[in-house]
This record gives sequence, structure tokens and C-alpha cells, in this order.
Amino acid sequence: MSRQHTLLMPLDMHLHLRDGVMLETVAPLSSYTFSGAVVMPNLVPPITSKESLLAYKERVLLACGYGVDSDNFEDGDGLGGSDFEPLMTLFYQNYSEDFLQEVRDDIFAIKLYPAGITTNSEGGVESFDIETMRPTLEAMARMDIPLLVHGETDGFVMDREAEFMSIYKLLAENFPDLKIVMEHITTMAAVDMLERHENLYATITIHHLLITLDDVAGGMLAPHLFCKPIAKRPEDREALLKVALEAHPKVMFGSDSAPHPQHRKEACGCAAGVFTAPIALQLLCELFDKHGKLENLQNFVSDNAQNIYGICPEFKEVILENKEFKIPERYGEVVPIYAGKTIAWSIEDVI
Amino acid sequence: MSRQHTLLMPLDMHLHLRDGVMLETVAPLSSYTFSGAVVMPNLVPPITSKESLLAYKERVLLACGYGVDSDNFEDGDGLGGSDFEPLMTLFYQNYSEDFLQEVRDDIFAIKLYPAGITTNSEGGVESFDIETMRPTLEAMARMDIPLLVHGETDGFVMDREAEFMSIYKLLAENFPDLKIVMEHITTMAAVDMLERHENLYATITIHHLLITLDDVAGGMLAPHLFCKPIAKRPEDREALLKVALEAHPKVMFGSDSAPHPQHRKEACGCAAGVFTAPIALQLLCELFDKHGKLENLQNFVSDNAQNIYGICPEFKEVILENKEFKIPERYGEVVPIYAGKTIAWSIEDVI
Repeated sequence: MSRQHTLLMPLDMHLHLRDGVMLETVAPLSSYTFSGAVVMPNLVPPITSKESLLAYKERVLLACGYGVDSDNFEDGDGLGGSDFEPLMTLFYQNYSEDFLQEVRDDIFAIKLYPAGITTNSEGGVESFDIETMRPTLEAMARMDIPLLVHGETDGFVMDREAEFMSIYKLLAENFPDLKIVMEHITTMAAVDMLERHENLYATITIHHLLITLDDVAGGMLAPHLFCKPIAKRPEDREALLKVALEAHPKVMFGSDSAPHPQHRKEACGCAAGVFTAPIALQLLCELFDKHGKLENLQNFVSDNAQNIYGICPEFKEVILENKEFKIPERYGEVVPIYAGKTIAWSIEDVI
Repeated sequence: MSRQHTLLMPLDMHLHLRDGVMLETVAPLSSYTFSGAVVMPNLVPPITSKESLLAYKERVLLACGYGVDSDNFEDGDGLGGSDFEPLMTLFYQNYSEDFLQEVRDDIFAIKLYPAGITTNSEGGVESFDIETMRPTLEAMARMDIPLLVHGETDGFVMDREAEFMSIYKLLAENFPDLKIVMEHITTMAAVDMLERHENLYATITIHHLLITLDDVAGGMLAPHLFCKPIAKRPEDREALLKVALEAHPKVMFGSDSAPHPQHRKEACGCAAGVFTAPIALQLLCELFDKHGKLENLQNFVSDNAQNIYGICPEFKEVILENKEFKIPERYGEVVPIYAGKTIAWSIEDVI
């Protein structure tokens, strides 16, 4: 009989759900296997008000099949009883303390993008002037609102994350009470930061544990593995693997799953983003099992995040089985990572 | 009045013409502005016999519009009087001295590919065992047949060329009388080799003087700038620019222009190669002019190669003008570098 492995309340601590038809395609794929996900705010326009945040949360829940204060949805059981919780984020700007007070109960965190660094980040931070940012960041620290950061400079593509370490240092030292999460880290340099600053944490994607730049551009060019931050060097992947497989208490799984329609990926000018959400748990099981570290996966995909953020996710039990699974060629218009390939673990049941 | 700049007998010392319809599309574009070009042998199957070499040369000349010993072609004037000479190469294998004697007068050089390293290189060298290669390489040295090398290991994509330097060293030291050309170099490491070994030379493409990995994968993914060796770091490009702009006597222009049909570039699994041949001289003029080094371009695009190889190209005078030129979106099925963009120099006349 195939081996099984059960994960309790898996959490995706970094997820792009987009909007409209794309949201309707991808949201149910995440809500099926995850208890919750941190939903990124880089829409067009980005989420910067309470109204747009609440309206987006409602659209997310609707797309997942849950009615909001309503019994109109067959699969829905209202916000309270839903078994998937979208953890909503605001797009970082210099916000007033009053505004932050007003949205405190509705937001999980605030996500900071340097301007122009990735998809829909044009309205992000232009320069990291600490004194300009101080009132907002100190208010966030007082209110225990975590700061999630896309940490890249506008330098040479292979150096962008490593160059950003000085900014993480500045933020960590100036705001010691602020919880700062280095999102989707890709380098040894970022891993090293975890030991240097108590208030720095990190999310790691599944694709950055699996691929390097070789997989993107070493053979044929592979647009479906092209993402930001770009996959780095073998020694960087090793450093990420080490902390993920040991489920270092400061690292959490965040897929950064980012859907784009096929025609935007296989084109002259391919958009950045790898779509992994519906197969992330299977790939993680395969990877952790291969390294004999399956016992650490629960911490990596849920418990660490619960401890870091102090959250209690909706109950969910995902039973995975060591049974071959052929990754679909497409989910709607979206081509997933490793489309058409067969992997060693599949989802047997979700309770 | 616009400034003009005349180039005499431009040579493209590294060119892919392919075969069939593609050859018919691209060959006339090179023969229009170049006096000669080193034609790469990585067809399917590769050129490894006298028969296939001569037959390919005939197809190349036909595609250029020149008849071979024939008056049937309006634009042709026979091999002797043609104003474009395809400099034919064999695909490296361990050849016997007898065979090399037999083909000596028909070949310009022999091109070595490590197995599987780029397009159609599957039959290349599996391992660099010097003693196995010695009889062939010593015979080539005696017969003054240059060895042209695609110098990449199968390591991490950004390290492949630098890792190959130990093999260049081995070749250069074991065969001091063999002329070895490091083809399409992309790194500071390769530039440094020029000073270390007397018998090492190099070709440099126009695209590696213009782009870095940032242009390929730093913004959107740019399949039409994806090539092998992949464009490297800014400091590598600076090192290449330095020796190109000063027309270092050991470096020559070789476009490595490599056409693929559009559907093979804008796809899941994009083929490697940048198509530059028809706009290479215009881009070179723009680049050298921008750096105030136009006076060195003649050496870079012709005289250095004449001196290194001891060749006398067909007469051709290409008059370029400092007048805007919009790069076509397409040449047949092939999308060129910078398709649709306007550059500062155009070809005014070819005499």
C-alpha cells in the first residue's frame, strides 16, 4: 500500500489571486487544500483603502465558493464557518496612524514593493528614506501589523536580492519591534540574514527550492519557470533547501503562486510568475520525502507560520499519498509548473 | 548633412545560415553587406565529410544568388568573381591526417562543439581527452587549419564559459602551433585569456556588446535575446566592450547570428539564438560612434580577421550613414534583434 502523509491546516503565506476571471479560476484551487493564504494586494490599482480591501476579500471568498453573510452559495457556509481564510494585505504606502487604526482588524499585514520591481508594483516605494517611512512603520510596530517585503533593488538581475540586504538591515535595526518578513527569498544572502536580526523572518516558495537559473535559461528558455525574484545559483538553492528541510523556525512556506494566461507567458515579453498553488503540497511532499525530511513539512507549511504570526487557521486535514500524479497541462488559461509531468505524490483526500 | 562611415570588406567570422528555406531567407542578407562569413557546420546531420561540405557550400552560394560554375543566375558571376565568400567549416571529430589533407583546400577551419552544448551539437566532443584528440589537432596545426571552439562546459549557465578556460589552457599549451579561436566570448575570464596564450584569439558578437542577462530576464523575459552562451554580467560586457572598441588585434567580429522561426522563439521552450546579421553593421556603427571609436571599427570588422587568418576578402565597400533606421519586425519567419526599434545608423550603399 502507498504511504500516506497528513498535513494539518496548510498555509500559503504568499499568494497572488489576481482578480476577475483569473481570480475565479485560481482561488478555488488554493481554498481546496489550504486553510488560509496571505493574499497579495498588487492589483491594478493596488489595494490601499479599507473599501477596496473589503471588496477584494468579498470577491476572493465568492470565487472560493463561500457566501459572505449569505446562504446563496451551495458550497458556502458564511465567513465564520469557512474552511479557507484569505489573509488580506494592504499595499504599502506611508499611511497615517488613524487610517491604520481603522483598518487594523481587517488586515493581516502590509506588503511593501519597491516601485516597478515586479508585476503591478508601479505605485510602490521609490526610495527607502527611513525618516519618511518612520511614522508608518512605528505605528505598524505598535499595532503589531507585520511588514511583508519584496526585497529587490533595481540592480543587475542576479544581484537584486543580495543588494537589498542593506535595506533589510536598515529596516530591522530602525524598527526592532516591527515584524518584517523577507518574502520569497532566493539567495544565501537572505538566509544568512535570519540569524542576524531577530525581527526578520522569511517565506520560501516551492519553485525556488526546486529550480535554479539553469532551469529557466540553461537549456531551452522556459517561460513558465520565469519569475521575480529570478531563480538563482545552485549554492543559493542549497541554502534555501537547508532551512526549509529543517523547517527553521523563522521560515514559512509561501508559494508566490502567480497566474498569468498562457499567451502572456509564451510570448515576446513573457510576464514573470510561476503558477504552483494547486500542486505545491504534492511537490513539497515529494521534495521533503526525497530528502528524508517529511516529518518537518508540517512545521514548514503551517506550524511555523502559526507561531510567527500567532494565528489559528481553519481546520483542514490534507491527506497526501505516495502515488503518481500527472500535473495538468492547464488550469483554465494558466499553465502550471511542470505541466504534463508526473510527480510522486498526490492528494488523496481533504477533510 | 548626415555623417557617413565607410567599411571595407566587412567579415562576419561566425555565422549560422542553417539550411533549406531558412538558408534562402538569411544567406542573401549576409552576402549583401559582408565580403565573407565563417559558416558554421552544426546542421542536422553536421558537416563531417568533403561531400556534405561542398554540397552545403553550393547551397549557400545558390541561396546568395551566385551560380557555381554557371551563368544561369542573373546576379551571379561564378565562384571566382563572387563578392561574398562563404568560409566553410567542418564539425570537429577526430579526423585522420589523410582526410584532413583531402579537405584542406575546401575548408577554412574546423569548429569544435562540446556535445549537447547548443543547437545541433549532439555529435560534439564528449570529453576533452587531449591524447585522444592529439593526432587530429597536431595535424591541423601542421596544415594550419584553425580550431574554432564553442567554449562552454555543462555547468551552471552563468559559469559555463568561465569553467571552460581550463580547457582552453590545456588546448593552447598542448598545441602551441594550433590557431585556436574562442568563439563568441561573453566573459571577462575569456578576455583575460587573450593575454595569457599567444595562440588564442576570439570572436565577439554585437549582441554580447549590447546586452547583459538583465536584458534577457531582468524585466519581461525576452526570448529574442536568448542565446548560448547566455549574456552575462555588466562587468563582463564592459570587458568585451573594452577590447572590441580598441579593436584589440586578437579579437574579430563574429555575429553568431542564428535564425529560428518566430514560433520556435516565442514558445514554451524557446530555442537559443539571436538574429543580427542584417543589422549588425548598423548596430556596430551606432555603438562605436557612441563611444567615439568609429575609427577602430574597420579593424574590428575586417582587418583583424584578415591578419589573424591571413585572408584577402572579396572587395566590398559598405557606406553607412548616421540616419535613422527602423529595424524590420521580421525577415521572413525570423524576428531580428530589436525588431521594430529605430537605431541611429543605416546602410546608405554597398559597392
